[in-house]
Amino acid sequence: MTELAAPIQRLDAHVSRDRLWSRHMALAHHGAFGETGVNRQALSAEDIAARAELVRWGREIGLEPAVDPIANLFLRLPGREPELPPVLIGSHIDSQPTGGRFDGAFGVLAALEALEAMVEAGIRPRRSVELVAWTNEEGSRFAPGMMGSAAFSGARALADIVALKDPDGVRVAEALDAVAAAEAELPRRPLGFAVAAYVEPHIEQGPILEAAGIPIGIVSGIQGKRTFRVEIDGAEAHAGTAPHSGRRDALMTAVDTLAALRTTLHDDDDVTRFTVGRFTVSPNAPSVVPGRVVFSIDLRHPDAATLQRLGDAVAPTCRAAAGSCQVGVTELLHDQPLEFSAGLRAVMRTLAGELELSRQDIASGAGHDARHLAPLCPAGMIFIPCRGGVSHNEAEYAAPDDLHAGARLLAATALWFAEASDDELKEMCR
Amino acid sequence: MTELAAPIQRLDAHVSRDRLWSRHMALAHHGAFGETGVNRQALSAEDIAARAELVRWGREIGLEPAVDPIANLFLRLPGREPELPPVLIGSHIDSQPTGGRFDGAFGVLAALEALEAMVEAGIRPRRSVELVAWTNEEGSRFAPGMMGSAAFSGARALADIVALKDPDGVRVAEALDAVAAAEAELPRRPLGFAVAAYVEPHIEQGPILEAAGIPIGIVSGIQGKRTFRVEIDGAEAHAGTAPHSGRRDALMTAVDTLAALRTTLHDDDDVTRFTVGRFTVSPNAPSVVPGRVVFSIDLRHPDAATLQRLGDAVAPTCRAAAGSCQVGVTELLHDQPLEFSAGLRAVMRTLAGELELSRQDIASGAGHDARHLAPLCPAGMIFIPCRGGVSHNEAEYAAPDDLHAGARLLAATALWFAEASDDELKEMCR
Repeated sequence: MTELAAPIQRLDAHVSRDRLWSRHMALAHHGAFGETGVNRQALSAEDIAARAELVRWGREIGLEPAVDPIANLFLRLPGREPELPPVLIGSHIDSQPTGGRFDGAFGVLAALEALEAMVEAGIRPRRSVELVAWTNEEGSRFAPGMMGSAAFSGARALADIVALKDPDGVRVAEALDAVAAAEAELPRRPLGFAVAAYVEPHIEQGPILEAAGIPIGIVSGIQGKRTFRVEIDGAEAHAGTAPHSGRRDALMTAVDTLAALRTTLHDDDDVTRFTVGRFTVSPNAPSVVPGRVVFSIDLRHPDAATLQRLGDAVAPTCRAAAGSCQVGVTELLHDQPLEFSAGLRAVMRTLAGELELSRQDIASGAGHDARHLAPLCPAGMIFIPCRGGVSHNEAEYAAPDDLHAGARLLAATALWFAEASDDELKEMCR
Repeated sequence: MTELAAPIQRLDAHVSRDRLWSRHMALAHHGAFGETGVNRQALSAEDIAARAELVRWGREIGLEPAVDPIANLFLRLPGREPELPPVLIGSHIDSQPTGGRFDGAFGVLAALEALEAMVEAGIRPRRSVELVAWTNEEGSRFAPGMMGSAAFSGARALADIVALKDPDGVRVAEALDAVAAAEAELPRRPLGFAVAAYVEPHIEQGPILEAAGIPIGIVSGIQGKRTFRVEIDGAEAHAGTAPHSGRRDALMTAVDTLAALRTTLHDDDDVTRFTVGRFTVSPNAPSVVPGRVVFSIDLRHPDAATLQRLGDAVAPTCRAAAGSCQVGVTELLHDQPLEFSAGLRAVMRTLAGELELSRQDIASGAGHDARHLAPLCPAGMIFIPCRGGVSHNEAEYAAPDDLHAGARLLAATALWFAEASDDELKEMCR
């Protein structure tokens, strides 16, 4: 690594804390609500406007934009050997409906900052380096999320994805058409290509780095996740006349079901994550006994066998609590726990040392697009602290110095992989 | 009553089973969904269209329309002494979002049938007889319901009512303006006037008459009702990263709250009615721990003291279950149990005998506009069977013969009160 020390130091001097912060504030205008909230759901008008701004920023420094069939957006700094697989860096810019300014946006803007620093430093690396903004990581409008990286990696078929609908009945295919119309002048590229390495910076979304006072987390892996949709069908009835003995109240059955699931999935060590985030009642009128309830289950655990066992208990638990109602349980997603490339993590640890950034290893509680890149190439993630561990919320906050630290390590790592010899890269993939 | 026997028999011969059925089928087109469903919420476009049809039908037989400031709609058959307080007959034509063809509509169409039979029979009664269609009985769009009759009777102030909003933020005042614009050519009348008597026919919305095979229920009274809004505030958090120990999950607290309320309000005799019909979760996204839940409580009991005791237990029970969340409980409505005029019920029992209609006394589990008329004049209700006791549902059904029986008794009762001497009426009010 010694022969790279000089270029990396030169590059590092051009990674700008203030420019990076300004870009975060500017991007946050797209979908802004309240003082610091962001509602920029995937493939929405706000998302389209944010993408256009990103393309403008990239073009100003000579980056080459391109879009693939699932609307993943790329900004390319061509390398000296442009036919080689590129180094990919980035994250996503869609948000939850009640999101903040940093989740996803930080990874994409850190990538832009790394590329701008290379341009300013006059560095043209061996391999091309590309910023990527993956489509619909959050999965709040179209579930499940990580749609763009899943399609890119082949984890899910494009044909299946485009048929999905949002709660208003709009299909992904229609939403993609709207984006394509707005971006008619951008070059198109096919779905999926060989990648030399992938690095994704992200806010931690947990309290660990902040509590430790450490700006850099080298992410060891991502816990496994299973998601389910539970549908409970009872019978509507009049609130004033229907005796309780004859009711088939879908809401009261849902109450019993959630209480039973909470018991089944309880974990004294507080490692299991069990969340019911979406819950809808029909017809949802004050004097009508509910005839139908539909809710989501989000279940996560870092151990594959435990996740298997807990997830397999969901449907039997729901059925046992159904009483006189009908219950249907559909599994939507089963992602195994994942460990990131040990070689890439070692490189990042060394580079953090050279940049004098204190760092620690950390596990990811949340899912990220890096999950889908991990089978394709050396892939990894850089976490930075966020205040109180809060994300998916208007109050989400990361400090300019921490954003800067993450972008510095990203720039150095991207350059390392862009300059790596074929043998060094092969070593990483073993 | 003997001197009325001949005109009542003459009138009875003109009450048409088939015309009454056709009118039900025709009115059900306004807001129709599925095969037999009706979604005709108060002051909606569908409601406006149905009102226009009703006015057309009334004018065809010489009835005089009028509308008051809360959009209660009247069709008047002028009496021989038109300065006397009229006899009011009717119900409502708004429906629940997933309603049927008979709830409310039957009372209004039976009133139209009674008036048309009087016109056909050449009967001009002493007092005027007026059909009334009360505004927003159901309370599903604008809560609470029985808005028109409450304003008419003075039970609630018009100024308070018009400030209420529907879930889309539309105020009652705006919705009333839209109705007034559509009905610009109808005569206006002031809110509230003296009434000689009020009779409201309605489907039972319970299983009793059908099981007994009896077409007529003489309604003894209406059970008491209290309604509440419960608001639970926790904190949004990330489903993958937030440890359970630190969560303030509004949905899980709502589960505990509903379970506790069910225990507190349990009734071995199955007389108490406790329903949570509306339940909304925010932000309602699969990977966000819910930060807020708002739900409705509908609590009914025929005994005033029991209703008081149970309703008073709602807020303490919610607070005890709140855990780390904030909970707010607001009482929206407290209607005491009510007994209808004994004199009017005696008249209806006698007339049913003269018409050879089998009948029984029955209590009402549901609330009705008649509640608000009871303090003003002799008031009462006629129930007819509905299949399986089902209402507020597409499957709601009442047989043509039973609709006919109810309309026959209504016509006879209306004529009795319209012809009653001042002394007879005074006797009723004691």
